[in-house]
Amino acid sequence: MMPALNSINSTRLQHRIQTLAEIGRKPDGGIYRMALSPADLEARAWLGNEITTAGLELHTDLAANISARWRSDLPSTVMSGSHLDSVPGAGHLDGALGVLTALECVQRIKELDLPLKHGLEAIAFTDEEGRFGGMLGSQALTGQLSPGVVLSARALDGETLVEAMAKAGFDAQQMPLAERDPLTLHAFVEMHIEQGPVLDSINCPIGIVQAITGLFKWEVTLEGESNHAGTTPMEMRRDAFQGVVDFAGQLQRILDEYGTRNSRATIGKLQLFPGAANVVPGKAVFTLEVRDTDPAILAQLADAYQRSLFAVARQHDLVKHVAVLSELPPAPCSEQVVATIRQQAGAMGLAHHTMPSGAAHDCQMLTQVTQAGMIFVPSKGGKSHSPHEWTAFKDIEAGANLLLNTLISLAS
Amino acid sequence: MMPALNSINSTRLQHRIQTLAEIGRKPDGGIYRMALSPADLEARAWLGNEITTAGLELHTDLAANISARWRSDLPSTVMSGSHLDSVPGAGHLDGALGVLTALECVQRIKELDLPLKHGLEAIAFTDEEGRFGGMLGSQALTGQLSPGVVLSARALDGETLVEAMAKAGFDAQQMPLAERDPLTLHAFVEMHIEQGPVLDSINCPIGIVQAITGLFKWEVTLEGESNHAGTTPMEMRRDAFQGVVDFAGQLQRILDEYGTRNSRATIGKLQLFPGAANVVPGKAVFTLEVRDTDPAILAQLADAYQRSLFAVARQHDLVKHVAVLSELPPAPCSEQVVATIRQQAGAMGLAHHTMPSGAAHDCQMLTQVTQAGMIFVPSKGGKSHSPHEWTAFKDIEAGANLLLNTLISLAS
Repeated sequence: MMPALNSINSTRLQHRIQTLAEIGRKPDGGIYRMALSPADLEARAWLGNEITTAGLELHTDLAANISARWRSDLPSTVMSGSHLDSVPGAGHLDGALGVLTALECVQRIKELDLPLKHGLEAIAFTDEEGRFGGMLGSQALTGQLSPGVVLSARALDGETLVEAMAKAGFDAQQMPLAERDPLTLHAFVEMHIEQGPVLDSINCPIGIVQAITGLFKWEVTLEGESNHAGTTPMEMRRDAFQGVVDFAGQLQRILDEYGTRNSRATIGKLQLFPGAANVVPGKAVFTLEVRDTDPAILAQLADAYQRSLFAVARQHDLVKHVAVLSELPPAPCSEQVVATIRQQAGAMGLAHHTMPSGAAHDCQMLTQVTQAGMIFVPSKGGKSHSPHEWTAFKDIEAGANLLLNTLISLAS
Repeated sequence: MMPALNSINSTRLQHRIQTLAEIGRKPDGGIYRMALSPADLEARAWLGNEITTAGLELHTDLAANISARWRSDLPSTVMSGSHLDSVPGAGHLDGALGVLTALECVQRIKELDLPLKHGLEAIAFTDEEGRFGGMLGSQALTGQLSPGVVLSARALDGETLVEAMAKAGFDAQQMPLAERDPLTLHAFVEMHIEQGPVLDSINCPIGIVQAITGLFKWEVTLEGESNHAGTTPMEMRRDAFQGVVDFAGQLQRILDEYGTRNSRATIGKLQLFPGAANVVPGKAVFTLEVRDTDPAILAQLADAYQRSLFAVARQHDLVKHVAVLSELPPAPCSEQVVATIRQQAGAMGLAHHTMPSGAAHDCQMLTQVTQAGMIFVPSKGGKSHSPHEWTAFKDIEAGANLLLNTLISLAS
């Protein structure tokens, strides 16, 4: 393996990862650093202190995004980052890794004192994980956060976004004003754990993300008739669950026929009514979530699943209703950023795998306004959103060095 | 249609049905006469009064079963009856019809003053519907109620059987002592609404029950692995729900291959874990309830379903666990009683259909100790355990006259 052209300070990065991992950790081993919670505020204060101690310029915008800037005198910036907030019971790398590697890279570039065409900015976005809806900080910065969402957002625990922002010293109504002029954003790169099993299973240290998948999420209701399970002959039933079974049996066939290897279809939630062992279920409500990186493929899949639901409803004499819970368009990464990452990985002799991101990330907001891309490092066993989330430090180090050289290349 | 050999007093029966239907009825139209509840106690008091007013001998046993006796001087009795208690939100015929037609028949036989070899007894059994476990009165009378069950029985509302029996003036510990000497029971016939759609769909007024189905009820757990629905490729999943889907897709095939036209298989309850739209479900728990009238068929079906579960678990890399929630053996009706009912229906010119009972009834306890059988009348649309439960009075009348002539034949 060739040596990296430039290298981060591994000891410093590892120390920061370990320090941040203690903020919001509970005795069950999980991290509870939900957006704007006391633990998140503690992490933000710690990050601010790290930034100023590193001699970087600390900047906080109206959406409570926190940045470490270097050479902000230059007219545009190469940005890198992710988020500090977590789901309840999270691991220590999701989001945190992207923030801390970005900080390390910017600090290292300052130390190397390289000639730059663009400034550098390491950023921690507000509420990626969705305590108040998800990706609020990156939406605000890219001009995609509506004032209506801000005013109505409320956590499951009852706290409103307006209240939580006020506690942190911000006015939530001003969040949309955090929008940046796209001309000041030269590029964006986010490093993140894969949160899936692919890199680990092929033993590859680096994933280069080509596109972030879009999705549609439906709530499907099938209604037949509830009947006594003993007295109702099989052929006289209108069993809603048997409709679900026939439909669910088609999930893979439809992916095979209309999808790609990036396609996923999942039924993750299902309720039967009345839900008793001795009653033929008269009603079934379930979710269907379908993802792909290509909007045309997603549209084809939606058509095919609708057609299958029609057929199943007709065959079982059921009434079907489909409610669209959410739709998110796919976000292709910048070909130029992908090429730069690939080039640097090649120069560093790092094995890499080009792949989609099946999960949502702040980066997909950035793809709307600038050239953007992502670097993945392997998740052991594909685990995330769990204290079992883990990535070998040698993979983290390789990813961070790749990020460093990519950012230098983009900023030079 | 030939006239009935003997006829009940229709006006009296109709009046009693209407009167009893008001006891425990709530504004939603449903009847809430759960065993030993205030409404059930009111119905019992009303029935006792009807019995004595009719000039019949009122008898209450240690299990709180209430009887109207005629010619108790004879050494053995032909018994008929059902139950007064209801599920919450019930219709007005389930159980009540069997008690009131039996009372009407016994009263009519007294009025006809026929020569008899056996006495007559109309009976209302305690807790058929299961507030404290189900069929307690008929279990006690046939020597099948264990003292352990009595002491541990508790309603969902928290009241114990011991407390409820005490309020009604009984000592629950003495319930098993209600056991009758089988030699004193010459025969048993229960009239009941079908609670299924068969008679209504073929427009036939009378069902003659050949056997009451047995059943097994399993709780099946399939465990795979919960994973992110976006980041986990289809081929790397251990999706517990897809295991359920494959198994449920075999329900009908297995019934077709190993069952009979009396067989039923139902998945009525299912839970997915963690149960989120964006998580591949790592665990599924569902019930499988299978019924047939033949114990050998039931055993074959259990084998075939186990084999299918094994195959599905292997195919999807899931761990399976099967917990047996209940097993109830089929109860064949007495060929002699079936022949007598059929003969009387023929003599009366009544169309009739021989069929299994898919639901459980007090009669199945009686099949253990005496010759026993059942007469079904049609349930409109198959509805029961609902205020929509309904049977045309002409069908009730035909069934009651058939019961009368059957009881006369058995007692003569």
